[in-house]
Amino acid sequence: MAGLSTRHLLGIKDLNRNDIEKIFETADNFKTVLNRPIKKVPSLRDVTIANIFFENSTRTRLSFELAEKRLSADVVNFAASSSSVSKGETLIDTVNNILAMKVDMVVMRHPYAGAGIFLSKHVNAQIVNAGDGAHEHPTQALLDAFSIRERYGDVEGKKVVIVGDILHSRVALSNILCLKQLGAEVMVCGPTTLIPKYIGSLGVKVEHDLRKALNWCDVANMLRIQLERQDIKYFPSLREYTMMFGLNKQILDSLDKEITVMHPGPINRGVEITSDVADSKQSIILDQVENGVAIRMAVLYLLAGQQV
Amino acid sequence: MAGLSTRHLLGIKDLNRNDIEKIFETADNFKTVLNRPIKKVPSLRDVTIANIFFENSTRTRLSFELAEKRLSADVVNFAASSSSVSKGETLIDTVNNILAMKVDMVVMRHPYAGAGIFLSKHVNAQIVNAGDGAHEHPTQALLDAFSIRERYGDVEGKKVVIVGDILHSRVALSNILCLKQLGAEVMVCGPTTLIPKYIGSLGVKVEHDLRKALNWCDVANMLRIQLERQDIKYFPSLREYTMMFGLNKQILDSLDKEITVMHPGPINRGVEITSDVADSKQSIILDQVENGVAIRMAVLYLLAGQQV
Amino acid sequence: MAGLSTRHLLGIKDLNRNDIEKIFETADNFKTVLNRPIKKVPSLRDVTIANIFFENSTRTRLSFELAEKRLSADVVNFAASSSSVSKGETLIDTVNNILAMKVDMVVMRHPYAGAGIFLSKHVNAQIVNAGDGAHEHPTQALLDAFSIRERYGDVEGKKVVIVGDILHSRVALSNILCLKQLGAEVMVCGPTTLIPKYIGSLGVKVEHDLRKALNWCDVANMLRIQLERQDIKYFPSLREYTMMFGLNKQILDSLDKEITVMHPGPINRGVEITSDVADSKQSIILDQVENGVAIRMAVLYLLAGQQV
Repeated sequence: MAGLSTRHLLGIKDLNRNDIEKIFETADNFKTVLNRPIKKVPSLRDVTIANIFFENSTRTRLSFELAEKRLSADVVNFAASSSSVSKGETLIDTVNNILAMKVDMVVMRHPYAGAGIFLSKHVNAQIVNAGDGAHEHPTQALLDAFSIRERYGDVEGKKVVIVGDILHSRVALSNILCLKQLGAEVMVCGPTTLIPKYIGSLGVKVEHDLRKALNWCDVANMLRIQLERQDIKYFPSLREYTMMFGLNKQILDSLDKEITVMHPGPINRGVEITSDVADSKQSIILDQVENGVAIRMAVLYLLAGQQV
Repeated sequence: MAGLSTRHLLGIKDLNRNDIEKIFETADNFKTVLNRPIKKVPSLRDVTIANIFFENSTRTRLSFELAEKRLSADVVNFAASSSSVSKGETLIDTVNNILAMKVDMVVMRHPYAGAGIFLSKHVNAQIVNAGDGAHEHPTQALLDAFSIRERYGDVEGKKVVIVGDILHSRVALSNILCLKQLGAEVMVCGPTTLIPKYIGSLGVKVEHDLRKALNWCDVANMLRIQLERQDIKYFPSLREYTMMFGLNKQILDSLDKEITVMHPGPINRGVEITSDVADSKQSIILDQVENGVAIRMAVLYLLAGQQV
Repeated sequence: MAGLSTRHLLGIKDLNRNDIEKIFETADNFKTVLNRPIKKVPSLRDVTIANIFFENSTRTRLSFELAEKRLSADVVNFAASSSSVSKGETLIDTVNNILAMKVDMVVMRHPYAGAGIFLSKHVNAQIVNAGDGAHEHPTQALLDAFSIRERYGDVEGKKVVIVGDILHSRVALSNILCLKQLGAEVMVCGPTTLIPKYIGSLGVKVEHDLRKALNWCDVANMLRIQLERQDIKYFPSLREYTMMFGLNKQILDSLDKEITVMHPGPINRGVEITSDVADSKQSIILDQVENGVAIRMAVLYLLAGQQV
């Protein structure tokens, strides 16, 4: 099977529609594997992967680690605490050191936008971006689109609204790029202060009224409010944000049709989404998590095929 | 071989005497394995176990991890730091996310009593409690009783005194339940302020004079003074605690018979137990640690057999 | 093949020249393995190794972990945070507990000089010292000498200068012992305040003028300035240290011959060494990192052979 048109996965920007469809077909196969009693395949035996996380991320790290282990890769984890950064080493030196130990692929999360792109130009390894600042989070967007495809058979022509803090969200940007690439219609919805000015240039609709947005869409992807980021101001207040942009069962039941609800996690129950919505049949939140492992297996497997 | 009468191991409360004896017989076999040059068995190949620790515990985590690896299970570790809790996710959501990645069993330590029981009612996985607040620590109690059985051939009829802070100790409660289930006589010994009021209802003797307690018993289990917990007051002072309830060689040698000394670790040498006692032939402290791996292998193995 | 003359690797002091040469020949073989597509050998299958790090060290820990995994050993990691030390357990108890879980070898880093030697006298396991305070860091010295041998064919008769803070450096002491053992000539160069008084007794030249030292040597090993250690005073100031003892391209190009530049990492670019030097063809810094895995495989492999 031919591989992807890219050697790295730095962002959805690197992928054409054919690439994305190849990833989905490969993930279909791996999802079957993950539902067998024997969940392991020998595909990446003798491939060593380093997970380098410069930012805390239990869930994404665990998903990548399980994907790697299911593929029989050798895995080393590197959590860059502030202490090791205080030793004054540059990012390139850190990664080159790890690569000198004969590591084949690097999965990296970094707080700065573009860290993966920068790195890919300076080191000799395949890089998978597991989130770089407010820039991209490509595997999240792929698993989101894959979950929509699983629900509806196809992404083409589906109407997807992304609700919340679009400005600070790598999930939003990667989702927009991926969904547009696959022919979906995309809308963003949130307070004016949290919608970036360049959003129109991405071919995306903007709506500030949640009810109108939900009535328009097939799928609502409710972004997480980042309570732990003190630098983001949720105008006018968190409680008013929830009143205006939080999704509850009452709104959901008042819509003309049954829409699908997504969330990238971790959920703040009662803030951007209520518990009865998160746990309803319309929610595919846990399917997203499950699909995450299959998508990451597919990405790692296809990129490993590019090494030759 | 038939399995246990329970799907989870949340506490000794879940186990009947037959269950405990089955665990011991299985642990006998695994202990033989651990003393072979080849210490690994393929029993849990293709079973994925997540160790979720919401509280620091090097020793218990390491013991479980080694037990899992000896059984050929796939292991993922999740140390829930304060940072991930600050992201506002609920316990159920955290665990459901991990389970959605196709994890079969969860080994969990949590600072709150009853966390495992709560979880077992809300998620679809087998839970092994590795310590929940001041509630239970069942594998510790099993390895303690197993070590007594190893020393004396049987637990039935043995006299065991548990010395120290009974009030805040999950080790004490699980030990009492396990030893009573196996027909031992149990006494607790410590300052009045550190003995819970309900202790009589457990069919346990209470003694405040260490020398009398030691003269009565076959086995003394010396609990750890939790120096790191600032909220526990050791009345009247730590030094006076040691004078009244610390075990030293002089007391040990003055007894009529040779008793066996146990300690769940980590030891505060010179506080609850002196070095010459900890390192004496009467101490089986390191046997307890060794047996811990065999007991945990047995528990995981037997529970995995319940999955069908 | 006969093994080493020592059961532990606590310091270069334990090794005779024959031992070092045996380690190098074994590392030659493993380096070939590491450059094959299949990098794993079954040599240490059923050997369990615990990496116990009482001090942060991403790079050394990762190198040991990869070496162990390439050898098919079972690996458990134990990072002793301040919290577990605050529980008041002694070093011997901590290690004895880990050993009771049937661990065969211990790789330990500890902030105190002599920690490994102390431990080897009190516990029944093979100890590999991964750095003990300002005392020794034997695998670093072995990989450094191995890298010189790789560059020049032989270490015998080569002139090596070690530049920087000799007083606080375990890398310096182990390097001196190893290089002398192999017949190299060794010089140290740095400010008077950072050269220990006993240095003459090691048969080492002392030079305070960097240019003279470089003109004399074949190889310059530029030690890292430990910016994170507030207790070390770099007299008269860091900037003046760099002016007097930092290596830049201008000095390098002004020398009569082409010397080889080494650095144990992590590099402070622009402090002890400039970027153009670190990235030049004369630098073998990344070879050192690569050789580190092969050397550690060789040490673990040869020591495991001593177990019988």
